Amino acid sequence: MTRNLLIINGPNLNLLGTREPEIYGSHTLGDINRELAETAAGLDVCCEFYQSNHEGALVDRIQQAMGNIDFIIINAGAYTHTSVAIRDALAGVNIPFIEVHISNVHQREAFRHHSYLSDKAVAVICGLGAYGYTAAMYYAAKHYFK
Amino acid sequence: MTRNLLIINGPNLNLLGTREPEIYGSHTLGDINRELAETAAGLDVCCEFYQSNHEGALVDRIQQAMGNIDFIIINAGAYTHTSVAIRDALAGVNIPFIEVHISNVHQREAFRHHSYLSDKAVAVICGLGAYGYTAAMYYAAKHYFK
Amino acid sequence: MTRNLLIINGPNLNLLGTREPEIYGSHTLGDINRELAETAAGLDVCCEFYQSNHEGALVDRIQQAMGNIDFIIINAGAYTHTSVAIRDALAGVNIPFIEVHISNVHQREAFRHHSYLSDKAVAVICGLGAYGYTAAMYYAAKHYFK
Amino acid sequence: MTRNLLIINGPNLNLLGTREPEIYGSHTLGDINRELAETAAGLDVCCEFYQSNHEGALVDRIQQAMGNIDFIIINAGAYTHTSVAIRDALAGVNIPFIEVHISNVHQREAFRHHSYLSDKAVAVICGLGAYGYTAAMYYAAKHYFK
Amino acid sequence: MTRNLLIINGPNLNLLGTREPEIYGSHTLGDINRELAETAAGLDVCCEFYQSNHEGALVDRIQQAMGNIDFIIINAGAYTHTSVAIRDALAGVNIPFIEVHISNVHQREAFRHHSYLSDKAVAVICGLGAYGYTAAMYYAAKHYFK
Amino acid sequence: MTRNLLIINGPNLNLLGTREPEIYGSHTLGDINRELAETAAGLDVCCEFYQSNHEGALVDRIQQAMGNIDFIIINAGAYTHTSVAIRDALAGVNIPFIEVHISNVHQREAFRHHSYLSDKAVAVICGLGAYGYTAAMYYAAKHYFK
Amino acid sequence: MTRNLLIINGPNLNLLGTREPEIYGSHTLGDINRELAETAAGLDVCCEFYQSNHEGALVDRIQQAMGNIDFIIINAGAYTHTSVAIRDALAGVNIPFIEVHISNVHQREAFRHHSYLSDKAVAVICGLGAYGYTAAMYYAAKHYFK
Amino acid sequence: MTRNLLIINGPNLNLLGTREPEIYGSHTLGDINRELAETAAGLDVCCEFYQSNHEGALVDRIQQAMGNIDFIIINAGAYTHTSVAIRDALAGVNIPFIEVHISNVHQREAFRHHSYLSDKAVAVICGLGAYGYTAAMYYAAKHYFK
Amino acid sequence: MTRNLLIINGPNLNLLGTREPEIYGSHTLGDINRELAETAAGLDVCCEFYQSNHEGALVDRIQQAMGNIDFIIINAGAYTHTSVAIRDALAGVNIPFIEVHISNVHQREAFRHHSYLSDKAVAVICGLGAYGYTAAMYYAAKHYFK
Amino acid sequence: MTRNLLIINGPNLNLLGTREPEIYGSHTLGDINRELAETAAGLDVCCEFYQSNHEGALVDRIQQAMGNIDFIIINAGAYTHTSVAIRDALAGVNIPFIEVHISNVHQREAFRHHSYLSDKAVAVICGLGAYGYTAAMYYAAKHYFK
Amino acid sequence: MTRNLLIINGPNLNLLGTREPEIYGSHTLGDINRELAETAAGLDVCCEFYQSNHEGALVDRIQQAMGNIDFIIINAGAYTHTSVAIRDALAGVNIPFIEVHISNVHQREAFRHHSYLSDKAVAVICGLGAYGYTAAMYYAAKHYFK
Amino acid sequence: MTRNLLIINGPNLNLLGTREPEIYGSHTLGDINRELAETAAGLDVCCEFYQSNHEGALVDRIQQAMGNIDFIIINAGAYTHTSVAIRDALAGVNIPFIEVHISNVHQREAFRHHSYLSDKAVAVICGLGAYGYTAAMYYAAKHYFK
Repeated sequence: MTRNLLIINGPNLNLLGTREPEIYGSHTLGDINRELAETAAGLDVCCEFYQSNHEGALVDRIQQAMGNIDFIIINAGAYTHTSVAIRDALAGVNIPFIEVHISNVHQREAFRHHSYLSDKAVAVICGLGAYGYTAAMYYAAKHYFK
Repeated sequence: MTRNLLIINGPNLNLLGTREPEIYGSHTLGDINRELAETAAGLDVCCEFYQSNHEGALVDRIQQAMGNIDFIIINAGAYTHTSVAIRDALAGVNIPFIEVHISNVHQREAFRHHSYLSDKAVAVICGLGAYGYTAAMYYAAKHYFK
Repeated sequence: MTRNLLIINGPNLNLLGTREPEIYGSHTLGDINRELAETAAGLDVCCEFYQSNHEGALVDRIQQAMGNIDFIIINAGAYTHTSVAIRDALAGVNIPFIEVHISNVHQREAFRHHSYLSDKAVAVICGLGAYGYTAAMYYAAKHYFK
Repeated sequence: MTRNLLIINGPNLNLLGTREPEIYGSHTLGDINRELAETAAGLDVCCEFYQSNHEGALVDRIQQAMGNIDFIIINAGAYTHTSVAIRDALAGVNIPFIEVHISNVHQREAFRHHSYLSDKAVAVICGLGAYGYTAAMYYAAKHYFK
Repeated sequence: MTRNLLIINGPNLNLLGTREPEIYGSHTLGDINRELAETAAGLDVCCEFYQSNHEGALVDRIQQAMGNIDFIIINAGAYTHTSVAIRDALAGVNIPFIEVHISNVHQREAFRHHSYLSDKAVAVICGLGAYGYTAAMYYAAKHYFK
Repeated sequence: MTRNLLIINGPNLNLLGTREPEIYGSHTLGDINRELAETAAGLDVCCEFYQSNHEGALVDRIQQAMGNIDFIIINAGAYTHTSVAIRDALAGVNIPFIEVHISNVHQREAFRHHSYLSDKAVAVICGLGAYGYTAAMYYAAKHYFK
Repeated sequence: MTRNLLIINGPNLNLLGTREPEIYGSHTLGDINRELAETAAGLDVCCEFYQSNHEGALVDRIQQAMGNIDFIIINAGAYTHTSVAIRDALAGVNIPFIEVHISNVHQREAFRHHSYLSDKAVAVICGLGAYGYTAAMYYAAKHYFK
Repeated sequence: MTRNLLIINGPNLNLLGTREPEIYGSHTLGDINRELAETAAGLDVCCEFYQSNHEGALVDRIQQAMGNIDFIIINAGAYTHTSVAIRDALAGVNIPFIEVHISNVHQREAFRHHSYLSDKAVAVICGLGAYGYTAAMYYAAKHYFK
Repeated sequence: MTRNLLIINGPNLNLLGTREPEIYGSHTLGDINRELAETAAGLDVCCEFYQSNHEGALVDRIQQAMGNIDFIIINAGAYTHTSVAIRDALAGVNIPFIEVHISNVHQREAFRHHSYLSDKAVAVICGLGAYGYTAAMYYAAKHYFK
Repeated sequence: MTRNLLIINGPNLNLLGTREPEIYGSHTLGDINRELAETAAGLDVCCEFYQSNHEGALVDRIQQAMGNIDFIIINAGAYTHTSVAIRDALAGVNIPFIEVHISNVHQREAFRHHSYLSDKAVAVICGLGAYGYTAAMYYAAKHYFK
Repeated sequence: MTRNLLIINGPNLNLLGTREPEIYGSHTLGDINRELAETAAGLDVCCEFYQSNHEGALVDRIQQAMGNIDFIIINAGAYTHTSVAIRDALAGVNIPFIEVHISNVHQREAFRHHSYLSDKAVAVICGLGAYGYTAAMYYAAKHYFK
Repeated sequence: MTRNLLIINGPNLNLLGTREPEIYGSHTLGDINRELAETAAGLDVCCEFYQSNHEGALVDRIQQAMGNIDFIIINAGAYTHTSVAIRDALAGVNIPFIEVHISNVHQREAFRHHSYLSDKAVAVICGLGAYGYTAAMYYAAKHYFK
């Protein structure tokens, strides 16, 4: 039985740990992904990771998930607020997903209060830092990988 | 060392399990709270529960938390979208809190997309069902109860 | 066969007959309810009345109607324009209801032109004075009590 | 003593009974008018009926009511939301009127939530089906025909 | 040399003198047109008059002016605020026109502050009562009939 | 097998060929309809034509189509942007239709960017000139006349 | 001669002196009320005090003032911005009142810039701290207690 | 019997005849005022003229009119759209006035479509060029100087 | 020890006592200033007065206060709603100030509900009539002149 | 004589036939392009095809069309609603183009009702399915390839 | 050959060097103008300077530039955001101009993000401090003084 | 001492000199960069150039500047108005930057009046053509390279 999870990070999340640590913390994306991989292993989940600063590349990656990925956890970063293309890709492949943000976007600029993904998502988590991905993974493992 | 957590539920959440189960699931609030109490026990956290349909009563309860509660998890239900008084109470007692919603509010009416609490919260979780409270508790236990 | 009707009045409607009679007329809420009880008796309808200035109390009362009330006639007064909690309570108990206003709210302040209840209601009546409740009762008797 | 009532129906209401019955019911306008004529007879009210799909014709008809009609019940249909001319005609002839809608307009498209007539009307009734006209007639008979 | 002027009045302006005299004065449209005809005669202008409550009829009349009318004075009444069709007719026949309103529309409801005709008009006059038509005629005579 | 198509043109489209040719071209509506009739003949489609400047007449004509017309192609002209009555008529008769505009309305005034018909239409075509009707007819012939 | 003044404080004002002292100062509500009582005594004014976190309780208290209170000074706190019910209660009892805020609400969140009470109030004072109540009392004593 | 008229021109109207003649024509303000003085003489009206680029000077001049001027014709130029002070001055001196614009402001930038003066004016005239002042003078002579 | 207070009044406040007395009362600005000077004397405060209808002159006067004035009380009248320049002058000289309005601006036109000064002010008082200046002076004397 | 046509498809259109077939139909993009190539051959038009999920790649491709492509048919998919860069590329290369959408975007989310391309396009077609490209090609062949 | 440049500074810019130095720096306007005069001399440009806090005086000065000034550099300060009169003066004299702001207005209050001058200006520079004037002068010297 | 400057140009700026020369001039980007390189050499500044039509590539390039570039001059072209990702990249690398536009964006479409970069920039320059980059370089050299 396959239990495949794809974790996608969008633009500038590769800067994690170096960029505005008072907002995003000091863990790098590599650190976070390593911890998530360990957690996934414990849950008997097969976990893939992808990061890109390119909207089109994120769309490509989501499309490639069709048929082999059961759940997506996505932090689309800035594209959360501007990308209809990513929304359409997620709807197009018809894979359930959770939207995660490391910081609490509601404390930031007004344009970050709108997401093109939220109404298509199973759930939205923001402000829990790296633990947001973990919580999403636990939820997926319990409700979507049976 | 005290590790006191208060879990507050607002209006109509006492109907959980009976009301619109396709949105909110079939667990009652009692079921959820029992599970949370067990999880809390495992985390060595002391957990209190409160539910009310009265905005003023919720304000009163938050005020009483001052000095004896270390963290609040709140699902303010409908008052999320209309209550400045609860916002002010939470800011007034200066206790960190996480905002939880059982359903994904972004899939519902437009007026549910705005929250008077979010920009004061540590984090916001919606759409994870009852697991949203659990995830918030784990986060609080890890980051706020040391 | 039970034919139970609940008539709810919200904040300040207990002032009827004393408050701004040019808008609301000179009948007290007691007068109105007595007439409605008589009409109900003629229709073989069992009629309960409730008034409160407290949003939470109105929510409580609506919840208690679940399982024993077949139809609600509600004039939520000021809460019509501000209460998502009452909207959720009415949706939660899943009892059909008619929204009544004594005055024609469209002739008053702009904020009275929006109702959180109307799109969940069976019907909306405003400007007919106390007769609005009567008309709603006739309608309920004919279409919902069979 | 004359007690003359004019009942006006606007565009597409001649389709009643054939058009979108899940919204408007299966009674034709002829059926409704016949029932209203009977009710009127019982109230000793003289009742005229008019329907047109033409905004200008509705304006003409309202103007002709000046001096011989004591009360108007109007369901202006789509013109409710777009016609300042009908508003002006009703204000110009200075005849009290009630605005009726068969369906609950608040459950439909956003542009149906605004009416050019409501703030000039004595009362507004929507969602009661054909009974909305009847209730308006009873109200007029009681308060305006003395 | 032809000097042909068309004076168009829209919906409810046939009620002039009977309707809301505190806003529109006590002269009938017949009175006004008679005075305008006299003034026109003195200016050696040939003057036609048209009034209708029908938007389509006003469009028809404007179209018929093409090729035989040199200038239009139009008080489109309520259609000023709602009719793109009349705007298009005036632009389509390409006859210069002045927009006249008897009352000062800026003192009335907000929806009367916007006109679909004004940016296509040579000039706009409101609040001068019947003299508005006269002033427009003098202006047309001086600048357009040479 | 009947294959009946109704082609409706709204206000001022009878001026085609004379009015603002830089926007609408130099073909008259008669020319266009003749060409469409020829195309229809080649497609074995029975084609009726109607034009009016009157919103109410357009509503009447649409209603008369019920039961004998299989598809409507409509260029409602100015009423596209202001007429809920035509929208309701099209929805009421439940005949599939395509909305056509000769010019590209997106290059014109902002109020022409909204249509009361588009979300009820099968398709919307603008800017193709008279060919827009032709393309609509081919589409209808292929997908609706079988 | 009775000279009765009611001073009402809304939600969270019972936290004064403990909550966000950089905004609200370090005086408790008890301190403020004691000083106001002394000032009132000097002005020969009889002064009652009420505080509640419950919107409905504030409405109840205002209603009870009818017939025995000559002037109200109200700091409705968060309900200033959300409560039509309190507005209606104040209008319903028809007692003149002054709206007071301890902090300058114009320096705070945008939603605090709108008040449901201001256009019904005699006057509005914000930013004067506890002295705002005193100034309101002097004004009432001079202009309303004669 | 005094019949005193004050004609006020606001900022940049002293440039008339030199500035953007395609919008404002080639007559200087001196030319226009001379013609108006002649017309005034023929009407037995005493006419004063004032122009300033200073908002405060215009306010001063309007204030000085109190008690000696019976009617004001004002083209406030750019201040039409930005000056509450001039609005208040005109309301303060309580002298009836007509608002005149040489060009048709509705054909220009959107911010010129709003006037702070119009709802306080007797009438508004725009697009008639210098004749706008003349028409206003005739109207004042007929209706206000008796 | 200097305790210097500057009291500034903006446009049209020199009309006080003559202009719209139902809104502004019958005291002239001279009367008010005389009373304020007496109050100031009793408080051992040195008080200067300035009034102008010119935005620039008000800016000049505020700038001249730098270095010799300790507190400003300003009723900027109409410029409250339109002048960024006065806002900038007050911020530029960095002198604390209270904004006063004689009438309750919240009962007047919507454009008077916004002030360019309020968020820079210590406090805002409106509707207390001339006593608003007095209350502001007491407050300044107590909190800013020590 | 060259008659070169470029057909561009944007993000997620490579999913056609697999994604949301109830909206987009069951033809793949390959199917559609094959049919279009055949139609082009019959019209003696040389046809190139391009699809990308990358906004920048679409901009690159449009730029490369300069000097060798005579007409573009573009379905920019999600980028229709978010890409100023594609708009600028189309304007920059100055090649006439038609905007095509397979579904009727007016029946979908509100953000799909605005296009950054429409006012630069020759024409806009939506809702005709794959035939939209064909109709655009016929139009281009007739009006642009001569 | 005349090469005349006028440098205009608006309200509160005479406070430069004393006012909010963290935003505007510590150079006085005199310092800046002296440096600009030196730079101008090196470019063989004749340079005049003007500063006023009075909108009307700025309009007057711009008008006086007609016929003797070839280019204007203007920092209209607060009037940038509120003055249509200065916009009209600049358009009226038809002298090319560059708009300069010392601070980056986009980092400040929202009302500073709109300028009445920008769309009439050749260019807009903000945030370069005093060097903004210098850059504007170099540009003018190169492109406008030949 | 390193003095490294990065000059970034966004989408379609590679078309400079060929595209809409009336807006952007006839210099190619190569011409501009050559001139800038010469100017940089004179200022002892090391200058790198980058252009891309891909949002993601621009994000990548900005990230690579971290640690080796001291200042960025960026003309993000169309992405100025739509890219939160570029905003975040610039904030993430924490390198000061100036935003440059060749044309005066305030004279163009309304959507070009908003920039996602401006409030993060040191300064904004638009309308100076290629000289905008030069002025930005001089400013950077003077204030940031010491």
